[in-house]
Amino acid sequence: MPTPRIAWIGLGVMGSPMAENLLKAGYHVTGHTLEKHKLDRLAAAGGVPAGSVAEAVRGADVVVTMLPADPHLEAVAHGESGILAHAGPGTLLIDMSTVAPGTSVALAEAAAARGLRVLDAPVSGGEAGAVEGVLSIMVGGERADFERAEPLFRALGTTVVHCGAHGSGQTVKAANQLVVAVNIQVCAEAVVFLEKSGVDLAAALDVLAGGLAGSAVLERKRHNFLAHDFAPGFRIDLHHKDMGIVTDAARAVGAALPLGAVAATLVAAARAQGDGGLDHSALLRGVERLSGVAS
Amino acid sequence: MPTPRIAWIGLGVMGSPMAENLLKAGYHVTGHTLEKHKLDRLAAAGGVPAGSVAEAVRGADVVVTMLPADPHLEAVAHGESGILAHAGPGTLLIDMSTVAPGTSVALAEAAAARGLRVLDAPVSGGEAGAVEGVLSIMVGGERADFERAEPLFRALGTTVVHCGAHGSGQTVKAANQLVVAVNIQVCAEAVVFLEKSGVDLAAALDVLAGGLAGSAVLERKRHNFLAHDFAPGFRIDLHHKDMGIVTDAARAVGAALPLGAVAATLVAAARAQGDGGLDHSALLRGVERLSGVAS
Amino acid sequence: MPTPRIAWIGLGVMGSPMAENLLKAGYHVTGHTLEKHKLDRLAAAGGVPAGSVAEAVRGADVVVTMLPADPHLEAVAHGESGILAHAGPGTLLIDMSTVAPGTSVALAEAAAARGLRVLDAPVSGGEAGAVEGVLSIMVGGERADFERAEPLFRALGTTVVHCGAHGSGQTVKAANQLVVAVNIQVCAEAVVFLEKSGVDLAAALDVLAGGLAGSAVLERKRHNFLAHDFAPGFRIDLHHKDMGIVTDAARAVGAALPLGAVAATLVAAARAQGDGGLDHSALLRGVERLSGVAS
Amino acid sequence: MPTPRIAWIGLGVMGSPMAENLLKAGYHVTGHTLEKHKLDRLAAAGGVPAGSVAEAVRGADVVVTMLPADPHLEAVAHGESGILAHAGPGTLLIDMSTVAPGTSVALAEAAAARGLRVLDAPVSGGEAGAVEGVLSIMVGGERADFERAEPLFRALGTTVVHCGAHGSGQTVKAANQLVVAVNIQVCAEAVVFLEKSGVDLAAALDVLAGGLAGSAVLERKRHNFLAHDFAPGFRIDLHHKDMGIVTDAARAVGAALPLGAVAATLVAAARAQGDGGLDHSALLRGVERLSGVAS
Repeated sequence: MPTPRIAWIGLGVMGSPMAENLLKAGYHVTGHTLEKHKLDRLAAAGGVPAGSVAEAVRGADVVVTMLPADPHLEAVAHGESGILAHAGPGTLLIDMSTVAPGTSVALAEAAAARGLRVLDAPVSGGEAGAVEGVLSIMVGGERADFERAEPLFRALGTTVVHCGAHGSGQTVKAANQLVVAVNIQVCAEAVVFLEKSGVDLAAALDVLAGGLAGSAVLERKRHNFLAHDFAPGFRIDLHHKDMGIVTDAARAVGAALPLGAVAATLVAAARAQGDGGLDHSALLRGVERLSGVAS
Repeated sequence: MPTPRIAWIGLGVMGSPMAENLLKAGYHVTGHTLEKHKLDRLAAAGGVPAGSVAEAVRGADVVVTMLPADPHLEAVAHGESGILAHAGPGTLLIDMSTVAPGTSVALAEAAAARGLRVLDAPVSGGEAGAVEGVLSIMVGGERADFERAEPLFRALGTTVVHCGAHGSGQTVKAANQLVVAVNIQVCAEAVVFLEKSGVDLAAALDVLAGGLAGSAVLERKRHNFLAHDFAPGFRIDLHHKDMGIVTDAARAVGAALPLGAVAATLVAAARAQGDGGLDHSALLRGVERLSGVAS
Repeated sequence: MPTPRIAWIGLGVMGSPMAENLLKAGYHVTGHTLEKHKLDRLAAAGGVPAGSVAEAVRGADVVVTMLPADPHLEAVAHGESGILAHAGPGTLLIDMSTVAPGTSVALAEAAAARGLRVLDAPVSGGEAGAVEGVLSIMVGGERADFERAEPLFRALGTTVVHCGAHGSGQTVKAANQLVVAVNIQVCAEAVVFLEKSGVDLAAALDVLAGGLAGSAVLERKRHNFLAHDFAPGFRIDLHHKDMGIVTDAARAVGAALPLGAVAATLVAAARAQGDGGLDHSALLRGVERLSGVAS
Repeated sequence: MPTPRIAWIGLGVMGSPMAENLLKAGYHVTGHTLEKHKLDRLAAAGGVPAGSVAEAVRGADVVVTMLPADPHLEAVAHGESGILAHAGPGTLLIDMSTVAPGTSVALAEAAAARGLRVLDAPVSGGEAGAVEGVLSIMVGGERADFERAEPLFRALGTTVVHCGAHGSGQTVKAANQLVVAVNIQVCAEAVVFLEKSGVDLAAALDVLAGGLAGSAVLERKRHNFLAHDFAPGFRIDLHHKDMGIVTDAARAVGAALPLGAVAATLVAAARAQGDGGLDHSALLRGVERLSGVAS
């Protein structure tokens, strides 16, 4: 079986190293993005720059999109110069952006009307995970399409899971972001409580990390909390976007998420207070302000 | 140096196996509790049953208390027949109960007035941890006293940390219970969100557990969530008591804990709805009821 | 000046009596809706039924829309058979539906491109207020247009206020629904707290109503709370829709609303638990369930 | 029937004018407080200063306490020099302080053991209500005692309601403070939402005040919100104390109060941020900080 020809749309912080990992794995990749220097970088890595979406997707077996948010995906998919208009019948469209589950379902329906297959396949693991090819990939869509795409996913990540029908990948990504936001926020609350109580913070976090309170957040963000080092990492602005997806999706299915609602408010507050460009562990700054701790 | 003579007050689910671990480690243990059969069990393990607190603490180098809550500790410590009245000068009183930090501070002050030393040393790890001697022990009080008690702690647990001044052990325990309650609650929210979205729940939890959303809760309570198996474990009634300590202690030091406040409300609600005797992972039932999922 | 000719689109529970009040005030009203019997009712009241939006708006000086939600408004406004395509230049389009502020702003922009003027003018006061012509009307748009429309508004309501630029009427309506939802919810919390404390509830509500805790909610919903009578009134389903508008609009402007977020969750929970068709005072049932009170 | 002889303990901001209103109504009042100048003021108004609690209560038919918080009441009631030790059998003890319902119940039990009758009778209406004799008075205890005290209450307030058994007055007061705190907070949230949306705030508050969103808070605190005038009034420090009573009392009876929990957190946060001495309408400052509005 010949190696599939990939069209890659969106070569940002995540998209560029992901596309390069496909090139390393032997795929033929034609890429498009609006930033000229990212196209040059793709070419240097052995890929083929394309001047438009239409040019990129022509003749592709698989089209991958990796874009910032729902409007970007919709702009690239629809319209006269979009993917749906130019991809050939039978093409598999894999959207790896983080968007609303409903957006993924709508895209799958629109694509089906044109004879295209679709998977939603958002990722977690951040820039480091993208560069090292160790992303977690959550996939929604039909199982046969998932199986067809699995080798490609294996070139990008280590945890690759089919979660259910169209939109399921996005749902699981949303659940992931919900749990992460709440975990960071409660660790921040614990830190401020410990600080204001005059406890040895480093010793206390050691104990917490070793028991039922332990978590990846407590381990990977420990330094950020202790050193007040909030260089991103994953920016609060992006987590704010994701909490919007969680809020809307939970509303759509009738799931009541009290902690999720409060966490979404506090992420929004962090952004409103000017911390949007900091790592999401900077939720600590919000708890400190709320508790009158100078930070 | 001769082995210290231990008086152990409180031989419940946690206290009995802990006292037995001291006996195994070669300590001389005189125990007291209100339940006759627990005294028999202690005797069978090589300990000496005592008919009263006064009898137990007479001649002891170290007195350990392991009691359900603040009022029990206060009753045992104070009064004509209490520990403070009968323990000799220089005795070290180690309270391993989970009580309010303020209770520990007040006990330390009252004891100091009688020439006694005090450590607060609450534990986490549950009955299994007590039996296997692998508890986490969070200690507040003076460092010299901590060092004096450390060998004893090492017979009971594997993580033994001095957290600061009197009450600090209780503060860290409170922070631990805060983080655990919120983690369980947000995992429950994620589970209901995923269920109502029609996603493959087991697959989804696999992805979450592998990334930044991963936690000890997600790992150790996974079975409870998936199987709706809520046999305790750690009962909601006890976590409710602990959230009361968190709420009061945070209030005392001026720490604002929005997620903590909501979680405390939801733990209280679970209890009000009759789930107090279930494992704390049964917070899932509360989210299901709130979201109209029959459970 | 001749009496303006009104096209009225949407003759539901609110729209029908409102259009009839215009007829009583001497306006010429041509109406359109999808329900045949509502058109008959309009004719019986002296209005002119129209078979389509296009037919209704042809020759109108003012077009009023009173529709359930954003998608209905967008469907009626845009497209080949919509208002924008068929209303003559200079027509004033008054949208009295409750929709997102952003929807009102977008409509105003689209209309301006075709030479039409727009006001957003949502109302509060419910069916009774519509029938009796005592609605509160919150208006966004240009002052000159507000002044032009004021006589018409005076035929429909008693409190008529210009709140600012396009979308401002919707913003104020959203703020109104935020305050109402939270007020109902906190009164419900107080009721359950009083009930579980064994206090004489009617006496207690009397005291509360007479002081700084007093509110229109406590006065108008007192009977509902005391008698558990939840016949609508204003349905939870509709308040749920409105809390969605509040949540999104607050997010859009960067306002952090902690109580609003929790209230939105509890309204959503009431709906998920099957109470969507009840009056919003049925939030009491949610607090009762949460607190283990059989209801 | 001779006029009852009153002993009044606690002549603070509230107690002084209340005792003077009794004098105006013809009662014989002997008063005690720790502040010398308040005793002089009482004497100037026709009362009799007493040098101790024991001296004040000797021969009194009714003892009234009006004290800052639970510990003050307990100190004055119990002990060798306290009310219970010195009041004659049959004396009616009326506690008008705001304390925990449980404190009132415990006092009633202790007093009954000495043949004394007790009512809890906290008030709302603030300093102005105390001066003008228009307080709301919420009374718990036996009906016969309430009826015996009613003429005295009528000299102090206009709304006088028997709410149930011992502690019921405090429960209703707690419910009152719950509703007030949440109402202020949601109005503050609405104000910030309106401000950040660019709406004419005064016009918007007019509309809200006229409908189902209307409340005593919106009316009496309107000026504070619009002018950022936070001179007390009722201080956040005191409302913080009261929210502690609400939290504990709700916990004791198993009432789950989600909005109450969040409001208590935000009141505590306002205090932690240094606003404890401001009027409770200064919760607006907290929402502004949370939303990044310079204030």
